[in-house]
Amino acid sequence: MKVPSENELIKFYNISNTTARKVLQEIEKGGWAIRVKGKGTYVQTRNVERSVTRILGFTKNMLEDGYTPYTKLIQAKELKNGYSLVVNGRRYTIKEPVYKIIRLRYANDIPMMLEERYISLKFCKDIQNKNFESSLYDIYEKIYGYKLTEVNQMLSAIIVTDENIKEMFYVENDIPAFWVEGVTFCGKEMILELERSIYRGDKYRFSVRAK
Amino acid sequence: MKVPSENELIKFYNISNTTARKVLQEIEKGGWAIRVKGKGTYVQTRNVERSVTRILGFTKNMLEDGYTPYTKLIQAKELKNGYSLVVNGRRYTIKEPVYKIIRLRYANDIPMMLEERYISLKFCKDIQNKNFESSLYDIYEKIYGYKLTEVNQMLSAIIVTDENIKEMFYVENDIPAFWVEGVTFCGKEMILELERSIYRGDKYRFSVRAK
Repeated sequence: MKVPSENELIKFYNISNTTARKVLQEIEKGGWAIRVKGKGTYVQTRNVERSVTRILGFTKNMLEDGYTPYTKLIQAKELKNGYSLVVNGRRYTIKEPVYKIIRLRYANDIPMMLEERYISLKFCKDIQNKNFESSLYDIYEKIYGYKLTEVNQMLSAIIVTDENIKEMFYVENDIPAFWVEGVTFCGKEMILELERSIYRGDKYRFSVRAK
Repeated sequence: MKVPSENELIKFYNISNTTARKVLQEIEKGGWAIRVKGKGTYVQTRNVERSVTRILGFTKNMLEDGYTPYTKLIQAKELKNGYSLVVNGRRYTIKEPVYKIIRLRYANDIPMMLEERYISLKFCKDIQNKNFESSLYDIYEKIYGYKLTEVNQMLSAIIVTDENIKEMFYVENDIPAFWVEGVTFCGKEMILELERSIYRGDKYRFSVRAK
């Protein structure tokens, strides 16, 4: 779909050319439209596709889909008592202390996903001092040398009504979302982390292949 | 969570014991509560779990989860022009005529999923005369002798606002749901059917395992 041109905006909405230009720039900046030289501005309806049948981090997923990933750290703290989560009917527990981080993850300038990660401090000593504004999977693999062996996840469909979360996602209306709870292993019965995330349903598609 | 007892219902809501008993029976009949002898009635919060990494029909899924599946045929007709669907960025087309059926699928007496299936009439001659109130996968495998080789699906999270669909699901408020579009193969490049379904988000969880 084509976005109205600067001249059309001026004519239809009776606004100044400064305002019209600003509107078009904002739309483009948001990453939801692309300006094609000499052709006009087009709405980018494309969603991010995410495969659930391979072990894939947010950063890599975004790069593959042609977006620039960006990560904002919201909270980080140590939980002395560990953490526990039920995934697909089974309870997974990290007994030793975990490092909890909450992050908001962006594609270009668009907030896409809100995540809570509970990282085993037994497997990741001193993770407190690492840079949390990039890929955790990279930290696990490149800094700690772990190989991720299995990811077990449960997907729910929810409606986001929480005003704080809606504000983080820059939306005013309730939106559909995927609620993902998961456990990541770095070896047999070695739980590296537990995860609880909200993926925006208006921006994501999960892809599945069964054979 | 415990459901109030017959006596509590009578006392709190000022209703007759006949009404109170009927209420409890209806709740239990719906499959959402279980009466435990001498203990009371308990809300059954359990959701249906559905694996996306194996080829699995609704009927089998329900039986595995301990429910009695039931299928209601809503519409059936032949489309002369075939059908086409985009799944995970690729367009899949059945050029020859397809048989379109719309069905509402139940667990015990609870409507769980609304589906549209577009079945290739080249691969399934005379499917018009089959019984659509049971498993289509069974028909493909047992009557036509096909082996399902691949299922490719795309999951979206949506909010169901359509009044007709809400009525079918016996809900008054908007509910979250999974919107599933998929293609099923019975051999290399042999498309047996295309599918568009709505799975209730308040009743379903999708499970995923990546290695």
